[in-house]
Amino acid sequence: MSQPISHIGLEHLDDLALGAVFLATGGGGDPYVPKLITAEAIKTFGPVPLVTAESLADDAFVVPVGSVGAPTVSLELLPSVEDAAKTLTAFEKFVGRKIDAVASFEIGGGNSFIPICAAAARGLPVVDGDGMGRALPEAQMMSYPIGGVKPTPALAYDYAGNQATFETDTTETYERHIRAFSMAAGGMITAAEHSMTGRQLKDTIIPGTVSFSVKLGQLLREKRGQAPSLEKPLAELFSTSIYGECRMLYTGKVIDKTTRIIGGYDIGEATIEDFDSKQDNLLVNIKNEYLLARQGERVRASVPDLITIVDYETGTPINAERLRYGQRVAVFATGCPEFYRSEAAMKVVAPRCFGFDFDYVPLEEL
Amino acid sequence: MSQPISHIGLEHLDDLALGAVFLATGGGGDPYVPKLITAEAIKTFGPVPLVTAESLADDAFVVPVGSVGAPTVSLELLPSVEDAAKTLTAFEKFVGRKIDAVASFEIGGGNSFIPICAAAARGLPVVDGDGMGRALPEAQMMSYPIGGVKPTPALAYDYAGNQATFETDTTETYERHIRAFSMAAGGMITAAEHSMTGRQLKDTIIPGTVSFSVKLGQLLREKRGQAPSLEKPLAELFSTSIYGECRMLYTGKVIDKTTRIIGGYDIGEATIEDFDSKQDNLLVNIKNEYLLARQGERVRASVPDLITIVDYETGTPINAERLRYGQRVAVFATGCPEFYRSEAAMKVVAPRCFGFDFDYVPLEEL
Repeated sequence: MSQPISHIGLEHLDDLALGAVFLATGGGGDPYVPKLITAEAIKTFGPVPLVTAESLADDAFVVPVGSVGAPTVSLELLPSVEDAAKTLTAFEKFVGRKIDAVASFEIGGGNSFIPICAAAARGLPVVDGDGMGRALPEAQMMSYPIGGVKPTPALAYDYAGNQATFETDTTETYERHIRAFSMAAGGMITAAEHSMTGRQLKDTIIPGTVSFSVKLGQLLREKRGQAPSLEKPLAELFSTSIYGECRMLYTGKVIDKTTRIIGGYDIGEATIEDFDSKQDNLLVNIKNEYLLARQGERVRASVPDLITIVDYETGTPINAERLRYGQRVAVFATGCPEFYRSEAAMKVVAPRCFGFDFDYVPLEEL
Repeated sequence: MSQPISHIGLEHLDDLALGAVFLATGGGGDPYVPKLITAEAIKTFGPVPLVTAESLADDAFVVPVGSVGAPTVSLELLPSVEDAAKTLTAFEKFVGRKIDAVASFEIGGGNSFIPICAAAARGLPVVDGDGMGRALPEAQMMSYPIGGVKPTPALAYDYAGNQATFETDTTETYERHIRAFSMAAGGMITAAEHSMTGRQLKDTIIPGTVSFSVKLGQLLREKRGQAPSLEKPLAELFSTSIYGECRMLYTGKVIDKTTRIIGGYDIGEATIEDFDSKQDNLLVNIKNEYLLARQGERVRASVPDLITIVDYETGTPINAERLRYGQRVAVFATGCPEFYRSEAAMKVVAPRCFGFDFDYVPLEEL
């Protein structure tokens, strides 16, 4: 379907946005402005080398960068090339070391673009992969800390140029601190955190997700059409990936959707009614991301598996902050990367970690 | 009444606590544990030189240090000698400069002791004076920023050894950031901020308040007895000070008191009923500190003037977090230092800055 990508150029950005929102499972922040600023950065500084973790030296200094906040805020408090680049530069000054490569917190929405934009402006390569293989609401849910990477030193930078740094021992504690700062700074900041060696990156990254997002976006663009027609091509593409199976769960109309910003997260739920009212409504719980899809007590899919809502007519994935009453949609579910079914990962991403009163059952067993 | 004090020793701590809680106007945090840890520090490291701002070189490096949080939390999340000293040491490392003298955010409650404790452990002098002449709930209300001192670089240290630093331009913004961090770190942290030169300190400090607190505490101890008997000696002492007149406003029983921690502050009110039910109840509005005392619509005293509630039988001042139903109390009001009646100060401490719908009228005109 595509050549291996060695650089991210302007020609990849639309597909990346489409694919990344599919993998974002509703979260990760709106990609529209991040895509525009990444295009601006690439026009100014040239395409960004996309490198595998394996190609980096074991002692390379790798720094993940991205936005932290409530995705609804990403529609109004817009990132800039400057914020992303300055965050890296300020981080280098803070730790007294030059960055060799930039990595991503999560593939999904705006946070797929921030590292590329920052890397472009700083003339650095970006790593093909991310720390979640999707988007998830809290820092300790990233593969990096699950694999033992320390969260700090960390540095946060806000739209007004205010800066904060953090030193702490656990990512759970760091998540509280950075979330509080993000809220105090208007709801969305850029952070550099979980810096690590090339060796640590190789051991913890969810690999290849940037180039996979481009491929996925290309498919969604080329096969654009009513959602049911996408089921087979999507299943085929995912069958060749690090993800599990991808299937369509439900089609219908959004008859209710509400989120509130609570503690720095978008929290709420959406209700989707079957087009023919023949089966129970599908309820989707939201904490930044779509966490759980259920019909009554019957779980149809849950974290850490991916739940994606797409526009029924075009197959375009819809982030939670853009989901609204009256939209005709299809709901897809995709098995998460194997990493997230490990015992270590389950300690931080199982449904009970989000307050749900049931154990995780893999999508393919539901 | 007393010799000028050149050092703070063990013999001063009880009087300092009494006097500082009077000046704290209900806030500043509970002094009990801060007093104990200061005693421990003085026993270990010796008395702390108490120096005037005027005695410092114009280019001396002066760093205010203290607790930031909701005073109710100070009853449970206890400070330590280590926290106070480590905050200074971490700050020196952060800014790359040795501290010449330690200053105080506010005279009042626990925050009168934290700088002394930190200075003792680090072998530094502490400045006789503070940044408020009382306690007030927000950082931008300090005389230092009112006089143009920048809030950052600032460093915060929590009970678990977590650390954060902040860089911002205005103290209003800094207040939001440090308050959010304090809440995320459990509700109370130690901060070093508003560092300045000796020259800036001379221009902005409310002078002599540490030694005055000791004098005031000595008076409260020596004249211990029913509150009305204290009115004359207090009026005499304050008449020789930087404060305005001190008068007793009301005596009665606390019939209601409620505060909640909202946004990192203790917010609420207390109602005091006249012993003989002959006059209207006195309502006292609280935001960490006692801000406003009124009978119906009649303002009896308001910020920036000082409102102090003392135990009726002994004259012992009572902080807001220890005020409770059934206490028999007397309410005193004291004119604030002249600095706080300046136009620049009024912009941040007038009653309207706290959401009250009236202009400030000095105590002596009420």
